[in-house]
Amino acid sequence: MKKKVNIAILGLGQIGNYLYNELNYKKKEIELKTGKKIDIVAISAKNINKKRKYKISKKIFYRNPLQVIKNKNIDILFECIGLSDGISKQIVINALKNKIHVITPNKALISKHGDYLSKLAEMNKVNLEFEASVGGGIPILRTIKESLATNKISKVYGILNGTCNYILSEMEKTKDSFNNVLKKAQNLGYAEPGNPKLDLNGYDALAKVKILSALSFNKKISKNKCLMEGIENIESKDFNIAEQLNLRIKLLGITEVIDNKLFERVHPCLVKKNTYISNVGGAMNAIILEGKPVGQSVLQGEGAGPGPTSSALMSDLLSILRGNIKSPFGIPLKKRKKISSYDQKKYVNSLYLRFEVVDKPGVLSQITKQLAKYKISIQRLIQIPDNNKKKASIIIITHDVMESNSSKCMNSFISNKNILKKPILIRLF
Amino acid sequence: MKKKVNIAILGLGQIGNYLYNELNYKKKEIELKTGKKIDIVAISAKNINKKRKYKISKKIFYRNPLQVIKNKNIDILFECIGLSDGISKQIVINALKNKIHVITPNKALISKHGDYLSKLAEMNKVNLEFEASVGGGIPILRTIKESLATNKISKVYGILNGTCNYILSEMEKTKDSFNNVLKKAQNLGYAEPGNPKLDLNGYDALAKVKILSALSFNKKISKNKCLMEGIENIESKDFNIAEQLNLRIKLLGITEVIDNKLFERVHPCLVKKNTYISNVGGAMNAIILEGKPVGQSVLQGEGAGPGPTSSALMSDLLSILRGNIKSPFGIPLKKRKKISSYDQKKYVNSLYLRFEVVDKPGVLSQITKQLAKYKISIQRLIQIPDNNKKKASIIIITHDVMESNSSKCMNSFISNKNILKKPILIRLF
Repeated sequence: MKKKVNIAILGLGQIGNYLYNELNYKKKEIELKTGKKIDIVAISAKNINKKRKYKISKKIFYRNPLQVIKNKNIDILFECIGLSDGISKQIVINALKNKIHVITPNKALISKHGDYLSKLAEMNKVNLEFEASVGGGIPILRTIKESLATNKISKVYGILNGTCNYILSEMEKTKDSFNNVLKKAQNLGYAEPGNPKLDLNGYDALAKVKILSALSFNKKISKNKCLMEGIENIESKDFNIAEQLNLRIKLLGITEVIDNKLFERVHPCLVKKNTYISNVGGAMNAIILEGKPVGQSVLQGEGAGPGPTSSALMSDLLSILRGNIKSPFGIPLKKRKKISSYDQKKYVNSLYLRFEVVDKPGVLSQITKQLAKYKISIQRLIQIPDNNKKKASIIIITHDVMESNSSKCMNSFISNKNILKKPILIRLF
Repeated sequence: MKKKVNIAILGLGQIGNYLYNELNYKKKEIELKTGKKIDIVAISAKNINKKRKYKISKKIFYRNPLQVIKNKNIDILFECIGLSDGISKQIVINALKNKIHVITPNKALISKHGDYLSKLAEMNKVNLEFEASVGGGIPILRTIKESLATNKISKVYGILNGTCNYILSEMEKTKDSFNNVLKKAQNLGYAEPGNPKLDLNGYDALAKVKILSALSFNKKISKNKCLMEGIENIESKDFNIAEQLNLRIKLLGITEVIDNKLFERVHPCLVKKNTYISNVGGAMNAIILEGKPVGQSVLQGEGAGPGPTSSALMSDLLSILRGNIKSPFGIPLKKRKKISSYDQKKYVNSLYLRFEVVDKPGVLSQITKQLAKYKISIQRLIQIPDNNKKKASIIIITHDVMESNSSKCMNSFISNKNILKKPILIRLF
């Protein structure tokens, strides 16, 4: 790479903004560490006149991001627009085809189109870097690709969504309702003000799981349908019971290879209070990785926000500037095989079940009879009456149950009018 | 670098052995990930006939490691002999002068001669990599050098010696004596069978602290005298008291910049039980790093043993094979300035003090009078009698005390015959 390097930043949201300032502020340090002089020659945003803390020269401003690639001689492009398709995908494709290195924090894009994009990057001998797409400031992707490169990784799991972790920690601490805590998270900037759904339903964490799987196991990104459950249905009373059982509720993303099949999932888990993962609170992310010969590795840090994200984007930039050219997923696409998916119906767990029922004789017997029918044996049972409303909560901790049985059993309760709503099911970890 | 790369391994102890097998076993994977074919063309150990699980071809065996550089055309050399001076230093110097990349897990060598060796590496445009020297399998150095490259790091601390952490965890769990637990650690291979002193007195952790400082703050390796205390004097009764106070004893290594001065130290700390660091048990290592804009980052993993160490050595190898050439400490030696050291006498801490005294009237008053003289105020006092022996333990938790006062005060007790041995002092973290 030549000594003077031309940079473009497309998208000036929270992240693009922070990055723009960081790049300007750290030009000298970047030159010291890589020997390269960077120059921001183009930026793109919808509105040049939007109030910003700094001035943008009109000479480098583009309303249409696609024009940047046509008009300017760019070496490295930051895609900070977001979303898996549309303009951001088009920009990244155009850039790679024009032999421009691309850096992006866009997990939706990478988890959906990462294989195709890495093929383009490899063909054009440029880098496609996406450290910021998983775990924010935690350098998990570089750690897998470089620091643990020759390890045989068997399992990766952790807290991959800071919004959900914040909400769960806060609900436990304050005993407040899901909706109130969500509002608080939105006010603090942890959750999207408009549509937090993709965080809350597990989609965001699952996109990260898919990127982690491809890197850890050297496979193509899976297109499989995965077990994905969010935190929207968890209520204060679940935290009260968890407390009594010395457990804590966490949304975990998990990927592992079982019998040469890939098993990816995201769902709430009940974890023992004295474990490491249960003590990662607030908006933090944490990832645990099991590999040979390294053993168990743990990485923890801030999972989101413009600061940590910028830190990751800058590490991608410095890697490219040092000339550390490599396949985006560590090995060439054609060497990454497809992997078939593990049958999630075989997944075995001890379960926490909460039934909201009409408080009248015979209801408990209806539930236990049904559980017995599906070979679900009970380890512990707690009934909490709500005398005012003639209702009761019945909480059952089961012994190990196969997923196929538990899902059939849960469905069988739908028609039961004594059960007031869909039972809550949380897997014990 | 040419497609076929010649490797030498000097030193066939636990680590050299494991590495030799790992390199042979993973040749194909290395080629897949870097495009390079490696060939082990020389190994060196004292005794070719020593019983090993594999055969060594006499053609590649050297009794004298210095001959390897003379006789063979080596591209990358692993120094696995150890110690800061003597043959290992000579080998590394010769190799770098001959434009051979060097990889070493030798923290004693790097913490003592790292600046000179990095100058040689930079002059000869080769890499000197030492990821395995700190934190075993934890990729902390690469994380600082690459993943957090543009962060302003303010503080790094953690559990840097697995032997000490194992002994402290085990003493707490079993209430067994230091000597018994040390023997157990030696049997398990955690502590050196011959001379575990360098682990136990804090020297090993301090060598790691010095490497971390130079990397984190972009300074020369400090030659300063540092606060260094080990765990040799801690007794079962300290664990009992800590338990009562909901605290745990950990040996921490800490480095930070205060008022543009470097403050490096290693000493036992009393940490609250509900903190992350106090829950890192057994032979694990953990490092916490505070940086801007990344925030707090935590890395945890196995800190020693041939497996984790090999994982780190391999990551160094792959970095070199990918052509990721850089200054050993991230920036060129001449850009790393000297940093003066913080006056440790100004260090302020709440202290745990344990006095073993003759159980007779007036002794407590002698102690408290002396503490008052040095402006040490008492937060909490526990006296535990040992009626059989007419002795007592007096435990005092102080308010914040400046190091200069506490050390003078402790020295003032030496002449007091009612105080049976040097008081135990542990700083609260």
